Amino acid sequence: MTPQPHHEAGAAVKAADRAHVFHSWSAQDLIDPLAVAGAEGSYFWDYDGRRYLDFTSGLVYTNIGYQHPKVVAAIQEQAARMTTFAPAFAVEARSEAARLIAERTPGDLDKIFFTNGGADAVEHAVRMARLHTGRAKVLSAYRSYHGGTQQAVNITGDPRRWASDNAGAGVVHFWTPFLYRSRFYAETEEQETARALEHLETTIAFEGPGTIAAIILETIPGTAGIMVPPPGYLAGVRELCDKHGIVFILDEVMAGFGRTGEWFAADLFDVVPDLMTFAKGVNSGYVPLGGVAISPRIAETFGTRPYPGGLTYSGHPLACAAAVATINAMAEEGVVENARRLGETVVGPGLAELAQRHPSVGEVRGTGMFWALELVKNRQTREPLVPYNAAGEANAPMAAFAAAAKQHGLWPFVNMNRTHVVPPCNATEAELKEGLAALDAALTVADEHTV
Amino acid sequence: MTPQPHHEAGAAVKAADRAHVFHSWSAQDLIDPLAVAGAEGSYFWDYDGRRYLDFTSGLVYTNIGYQHPKVVAAIQEQAARMTTFAPAFAVEARSEAARLIAERTPGDLDKIFFTNGGADAVEHAVRMARLHTGRAKVLSAYRSYHGGTQQAVNITGDPRRWASDNAGAGVVHFWTPFLYRSRFYAETEEQETARALEHLETTIAFEGPGTIAAIILETIPGTAGIMVPPPGYLAGVRELCDKHGIVFILDEVMAGFGRTGEWFAADLFDVVPDLMTFAKGVNSGYVPLGGVAISPRIAETFGTRPYPGGLTYSGHPLACAAAVATINAMAEEGVVENARRLGETVVGPGLAELAQRHPSVGEVRGTGMFWALELVKNRQTREPLVPYNAAGEANAPMAAFAAAAKQHGLWPFVNMNRTHVVPPCNATEAELKEGLAALDAALTVADEHTV
Repeated sequence: MTPQPHHEAGAAVKAADRAHVFHSWSAQDLIDPLAVAGAEGSYFWDYDGRRYLDFTSGLVYTNIGYQHPKVVAAIQEQAARMTTFAPAFAVEARSEAARLIAERTPGDLDKIFFTNGGADAVEHAVRMARLHTGRAKVLSAYRSYHGGTQQAVNITGDPRRWASDNAGAGVVHFWTPFLYRSRFYAETEEQETARALEHLETTIAFEGPGTIAAIILETIPGTAGIMVPPPGYLAGVRELCDKHGIVFILDEVMAGFGRTGEWFAADLFDVVPDLMTFAKGVNSGYVPLGGVAISPRIAETFGTRPYPGGLTYSGHPLACAAAVATINAMAEEGVVENARRLGETVVGPGLAELAQRHPSVGEVRGTGMFWALELVKNRQTREPLVPYNAAGEANAPMAAFAAAAKQHGLWPFVNMNRTHVVPPCNATEAELKEGLAALDAALTVADEHTV
Repeated sequence: MTPQPHHEAGAAVKAADRAHVFHSWSAQDLIDPLAVAGAEGSYFWDYDGRRYLDFTSGLVYTNIGYQHPKVVAAIQEQAARMTTFAPAFAVEARSEAARLIAERTPGDLDKIFFTNGGADAVEHAVRMARLHTGRAKVLSAYRSYHGGTQQAVNITGDPRRWASDNAGAGVVHFWTPFLYRSRFYAETEEQETARALEHLETTIAFEGPGTIAAIILETIPGTAGIMVPPPGYLAGVRELCDKHGIVFILDEVMAGFGRTGEWFAADLFDVVPDLMTFAKGVNSGYVPLGGVAISPRIAETFGTRPYPGGLTYSGHPLACAAAVATINAMAEEGVVENARRLGETVVGPGLAELAQRHPSVGEVRGTGMFWALELVKNRQTREPLVPYNAAGEANAPMAAFAAAAKQHGLWPFVNMNRTHVVPPCNATEAELKEGLAALDAALTVADEHTV
């Protein structure tokens, strides 16, 4: 737990990284990755003895924090018994993980197709929907992220799609509710819901209902900005899907497994999709794992007709054992309840209080351990603190904010003009208050860029 | 190591599997997955005490067998230190895995982009090639398998592509050398090589060289039938790529890391691709891991311009630690040399001897621990023992062959009219001889279907 400086060891790790590791989403010569020596609970530390409170949960996936002893022990035990086995067989860890997940998934979702992560879960969910309906198109949100493989990144709405955008991917993007920056000129939540549903309904009509295999939404969009959908919206989408025989896919890769203060964000809205994707929180990313939870009517489509998809590590025993231990630990330790309770009593009120004092905070929104602060140049105009998809000098205000947070011992999640507050779901009240204090200091830097 | 019968435990595992696990590539109501209780080295066993010699290496990935003690220990140690950490940071296991892999990859490939498996490795290699060249098309082989995600399965040539085939995927399939069933009416290897290259050259000319981003080939096609390319073919493809500025991608997901008796199959042919995909053998699938090895000229494209792709578990520390331990164990224990030596002295001669006695064997081909037997109804006509992509009754002869092998304690790899002999690369001479004896018995059953 106590970081020990080992500067030279860190330099060696960094040197090998720069020589041989090609990093995600990066210009390889312009990055300077921090060498990390260790991590525990809500903290990690570098080789120079600097310790950071992690308000990112990695990439919003360590819902039980780093190095949870029960999950570490379960991985060690499973490694001793059966690290791996091919997917065509029945093995204990796989069966038990599927059972525990199916027990918690919304409504009648009770068959689990395991993948290695979120992107391939989305790939397979979309394939199931296309084959189930015999239709090609997928409707997805402009404000969304669904994964980095070709089909998944085409479904994605954010700029990470652009370089790989492919007119043959069969994707149509539409606008979803976001009252703070309403695309529908709405002034109330009720208006936003009604108009967003009307927009979707008209889009479906003009695309042709019989051409649409699926509508896919993050239950609460994650990296796109944690816009909690207003009451009635998801139920309205469910209704439109039912009316037109469209498969409703909820992507809970980021929102699932406790993040929102419920096992699944869908539980907040009493909505049951036909397919639900998951990854990240299912085992806090201790071993790569994702999957699709499948309704009986879609599973039935592949009852006597083979499902044409698969992967070598589907239902990987080590990954599944980590999921079993994670889910059991979350249940035993009330991790989901912790996220809900401290979200309501500490994070939500704490961020609201910061917003009152910091003119750079345009909006605070979220639930559980899943919050976003929208940073703005000006509260009246709501002009973002930095332009959409800014880089380099244009992004300097957000870079300054992030640097200030780090100086105060907080590792912040930053995306465009937002910071997300997404600590582990089992973070303590004291940790959250420590993080809020660091955010307070960093927001003072952001305030300097308001006009 | 000694299997103990626990029939009831197995029944519970099986029941939960049937209730909740959705299986890869399967009609869910028609499968009857064997419940597996344990595995060690080259063997696994069920809950009824039946033990099988695994001539499949799982799905051709447990190159060091099951439960290798050094790798199990390394996973346990890494789990205690750092199970997971986000990809934007430098961490020891990630740096060391990249260094060890780059040390072994052919030629100047020295940057490693880590993925979760083979399919996403192919997805990202293709994206890199498209962005590097500014071209869209990918040329791939009809006799190939490249993964289950949408882009990867469209690149694939085998029938698993059909259900997801998408004209927008930008893929053009061509024919590759396979003298036994020559598409070029060739009678010698020299002819096959020359004509296959002429076929590719003409295809490039008619598709338009300036439209082609990449040619992707399995160095030795795996599931498609282990057709070792004849001398000169891969060098010829390399030349065509150089001539037209096309990125040459070799897929070594199955052939890499010792399978062929070399670290990489490319080493057998002295050819260096621009990008090389790997997975499976890199850590024997003990933890999901794949990746792309990248040449300096392609890495340079993403030096100051961000690579638009990534994933949460890129360079996962637990997976990388398993790779480090696997590569080190393979080096220390001479696993690659074992595969080469026993391939030459035991498997190759043993299969040739079986072919002499069994009229159902049309051809034996392979290298290292990577062999295929082409089973035929008739050696003169070379008619396959079962039709292409046969199912149900039409596939009965191969089903009977597989059942006979299992009765003799051998778990065989069966695909269409072929059985592949793909045991762990560290299998012993005694194990290989035991497996050959079981194959002998099973081929007697196949012989009954010859005419």
